[in-house]
Amino acid sequence: MLGTAAVAAAPDPLPSWNDTAPKKAIVAFVQRVTQVGSPDFVPLEERIVTFDNDGTLWSEQPLYFELAFAIDRVKALAPEHPEWAQKEPFAALLAGKPQTALASGPQAAVAIVAATHAGMTTDEFAAAVDQWSRTARHPRFDRLYVQCVYRPMLELMSFLRQNGFKTYIVSGGGVEFMRAWTERIYGIPPEQVIGSVGEQKFEVRGGKPVLVKLAKANLVDDHEGKPVAIQRFIGRRPIAAFGNSDGDQQMLEWTTAGSGPRFALLVHHTDAQREWKYDRDSHVGKLDHALDEAKTKGWTVVSMQEDWKVVFSD
Amino acid sequence: MLGTAAVAAAPDPLPSWNDTAPKKAIVAFVQRVTQVGSPDFVPLEERIVTFDNDGTLWSEQPLYFELAFAIDRVKALAPEHPEWAQKEPFAALLAGKPQTALASGPQAAVAIVAATHAGMTTDEFAAAVDQWSRTARHPRFDRLYVQCVYRPMLELMSFLRQNGFKTYIVSGGGVEFMRAWTERIYGIPPEQVIGSVGEQKFEVRGGKPVLVKLAKANLVDDHEGKPVAIQRFIGRRPIAAFGNSDGDQQMLEWTTAGSGPRFALLVHHTDAQREWKYDRDSHVGKLDHALDEAKTKGWTVVSMQEDWKVVFSD
Repeated sequence: MLGTAAVAAAPDPLPSWNDTAPKKAIVAFVQRVTQVGSPDFVPLEERIVTFDNDGTLWSEQPLYFELAFAIDRVKALAPEHPEWAQKEPFAALLAGKPQTALASGPQAAVAIVAATHAGMTTDEFAAAVDQWSRTARHPRFDRLYVQCVYRPMLELMSFLRQNGFKTYIVSGGGVEFMRAWTERIYGIPPEQVIGSVGEQKFEVRGGKPVLVKLAKANLVDDHEGKPVAIQRFIGRRPIAAFGNSDGDQQMLEWTTAGSGPRFALLVHHTDAQREWKYDRDSHVGKLDHALDEAKTKGWTVVSMQEDWKVVFSD
Repeated sequence: MLGTAAVAAAPDPLPSWNDTAPKKAIVAFVQRVTQVGSPDFVPLEERIVTFDNDGTLWSEQPLYFELAFAIDRVKALAPEHPEWAQKEPFAALLAGKPQTALASGPQAAVAIVAATHAGMTTDEFAAAVDQWSRTARHPRFDRLYVQCVYRPMLELMSFLRQNGFKTYIVSGGGVEFMRAWTERIYGIPPEQVIGSVGEQKFEVRGGKPVLVKLAKANLVDDHEGKPVAIQRFIGRRPIAAFGNSDGDQQMLEWTTAGSGPRFALLVHHTDAQREWKYDRDSHVGKLDHALDEAKTKGWTVVSMQEDWKVVFSD
């Protein structure tokens, strides 16, 4: 049922991909591990695949979309925090200068996220993200942020699921930020979304148990944190992994170091016209060491410009 | 397909349960949430159920089985640690007095686990647990530890899965200790096993990436930690939860505080002859406040002696 015949007989499962090397490598890998009786056959329960999110499934420029959400929260909460007018990074944000606010380094983003997420219950937070995801628009592409997802990658996830793979997100983004919309947009249920984790506290408010978000981080799901998170949440090594930056390098190393057939892919942002063009020197989504390792190890590298017919869905 | 008809037409799905109130309550709940068109119908993706492990799915006396594993590790590692002969809690363990070793409090167990688990790679640790699970025997029941699982609970998990429920373990036990055997014994895959978590470190050993277990705890999945872990790992509230001790109280509160039909069950150890009899004053698996709350809130309480025809599988 999930063998090669099904793959071959189906209409093109990846219509947004050009017939270049990456598409051929993907289809060949899926055929190889799903062919019953083949020495490379992988049983259903081990067909675990992991996808980075920012820059791999949706855009991450001009700044991480979760940060755009947090900035919108800063603006909404500003009336309750008059002190922010004098306090960075909030003052710069409220003055409409997000790049200035973020220029001081990662601790600025951490401060913004902590100030805008902490103290809320998980239900309140999910409702706020849901509301944002249905209204907030990307500054360049004139569409909702959640519509800035890559159609070729949606097709790829769907193709894999049709062949019995279990698709996971393994992202540096906040897990609760993603879970509010990933099922609707990607078809990935909350329990298959792994991300950076903040501490939470169980307490009873008005006779009802709630979980309250705290400002303290528990897990930063990036770089070395990705294999750690995969082991912690899934407990099984993926057989394929998909990323776009140096933050995904260790996940691809961990995935491909397992025995049997393995697949690793990097999305390379080469398309300034339809999306963005950046790699080795980028602040967001820097792709440098992992690009070199892809060459030595034979990982598949997708050039958005050459390998994708379209970038976004209509 | 997963409606009432299937439940009613099937042969008794819970043959090891007496026809007492708990069995009736379980079957009624499953019928209620799986009946298509009923106002209480719960869609497949929300049929999340969580089970405590120690004392709920297998025995936890005379001491947690994971501690029995750790003690066996202490004995195996003792030749490399001559200092243990003079150092508690190791000296008492090596002298065959585990209760003395553990009497000083929870920090003794933590020291034993840290000393015997830390520094191993995750693959080495899984192999050690696997080996232990296939050989180590329970001191009283003359069977493997992994055969001290409750047949009525195996039937219950199977019954739930046949009705489209996704069964999770949410245990204070170490997640990597459980995952080494839960698929084989319970039919629960690693990604549905949630437990206490230790920190791990990604590193490259001999050119190969490995994950090394550290002595530091990341999450203690007990009491208030259980709802936190459920939110972190599943991201969705269960509709039913099963436990046996005060350590499960908050999980049952969190589960039953959701909207729509909810089910909570406590296994009460009332059978000194076939298993053990303990509750309010027990060191291991203390059941006190949760038993009171079960009465006020109408949670189902299973008396092992009265409600189970058999305890263990043959």
